[in-house]
Amino acid sequence: MGRTSTARDRLLDSACELMHTRGYTAIGVAEICGRADVRKGSFYHFFESKQALTVEVIDTHWQGQRVAWRERLTGPEPAVERLQRLIAWLVATQREAWQETGRVDGCLLGNLAIELSNQEAVVQQRLTAAFDEQAELVHTALTDGAEDGSVAPGCADRATARAVVAQIEGAVLLAKLAGDVGSLDDLWPHVRRLVTADPPAHASTAR
Amino acid sequence: MGRTSTARDRLLDSACELMHTRGYTAIGVAEICGRADVRKGSFYHFFESKQALTVEVIDTHWQGQRVAWRERLTGPEPAVERLQRLIAWLVATQREAWQETGRVDGCLLGNLAIELSNQEAVVQQRLTAAFDEQAELVHTALTDGAEDGSVAPGCADRATARAVVAQIEGAVLLAKLAGDVGSLDDLWPHVRRLVTADPPAHASTAR
Repeated sequence: MGRTSTARDRLLDSACELMHTRGYTAIGVAEICGRADVRKGSFYHFFESKQALTVEVIDTHWQGQRVAWRERLTGPEPAVERLQRLIAWLVATQREAWQETGRVDGCLLGNLAIELSNQEAVVQQRLTAAFDEQAELVHTALTDGAEDGSVAPGCADRATARAVVAQIEGAVLLAKLAGDVGSLDDLWPHVRRLVTADPPAHASTAR
Repeated sequence: MGRTSTARDRLLDSACELMHTRGYTAIGVAEICGRADVRKGSFYHFFESKQALTVEVIDTHWQGQRVAWRERLTGPEPAVERLQRLIAWLVATQREAWQETGRVDGCLLGNLAIELSNQEAVVQQRLTAAFDEQAELVHTALTDGAEDGSVAPGCADRATARAVVAQIEGAVLLAKLAGDVGSLDDLWPHVRRLVTADPPAHASTAR
């Protein structure tokens, strides 16, 4: 690996770190280059624009995350335990980052989704694809769970899978805002309710 | 009501609209003044800075929202129906905006929370206070619901109330990203699971 590929990787790492903390708009190419120790002229040798770099940041980040999601959601255990393992890992990730930086930076994909949904179509497409994959991975686990009996049959649908992803994103948003990683300890009991709870009879009229 | 107060209100309205769509960092004072038809020199007569304006935008927005939240969550109906009324109103609000603009702009408070949590302490405090109030209003309704029997007794706690707020924010984030207001039609069934579902016995080992 020569100097060239290292510089490219450094630009990706720097952009990922800076955007995770402070978002897309607040970060300029000069700052990314400064942190990566790469000359600004070289930036455009590797990336056409900040937008193009951001698409690669998202792809690289989600490629790593996807492996982790799959690992946690696969195995011989009842599906609800695999889902619990995923949540525990997500919370541990936020906690480790918090111990290192003193901040809760939240979810890079969620942060960029909020900031860029209505503004950068290419970025929006990549983020949508990543969240769709997350929901699909959870949906597969829920389907397994309906078979092994650990997930309520009425909860093994794609809408519930999206609700699980939404609960994760919402809880991380509130933890980030409060700077309180401890609030994420409640995430699993709530996700569990989403996937194990058939609606009780007395609530059916309130549908 | 002279010209002065009108200009101030216009600045607040313009900032609210622009920030709701495109965030805080992407919007400058000049653009806010342009949309409000107020000279830039006058801006600093009314507001010390963009940050000071943003604090007022948040306060004004949440004051209006707070009234709406209280109205929907108060009444003689079982608490779970009041909660359903709140969710229906929130979804209708997003749908109306979408019909008007073709966009799902999501939640102004959530958008600013994601963007500014780690950067603007004063803004963060106001947003934290607003979300705390939301959780408190839901918590009060859940407590009523445990008494009237429409909410599961184990769900009438503050952590569940925060999970309801998280579910709203996460679902709105995904709807905003996908530009799909229709996905919010699933929000109520999922919130209902969070508040009406005692954990089933077979899931207790997965706590």
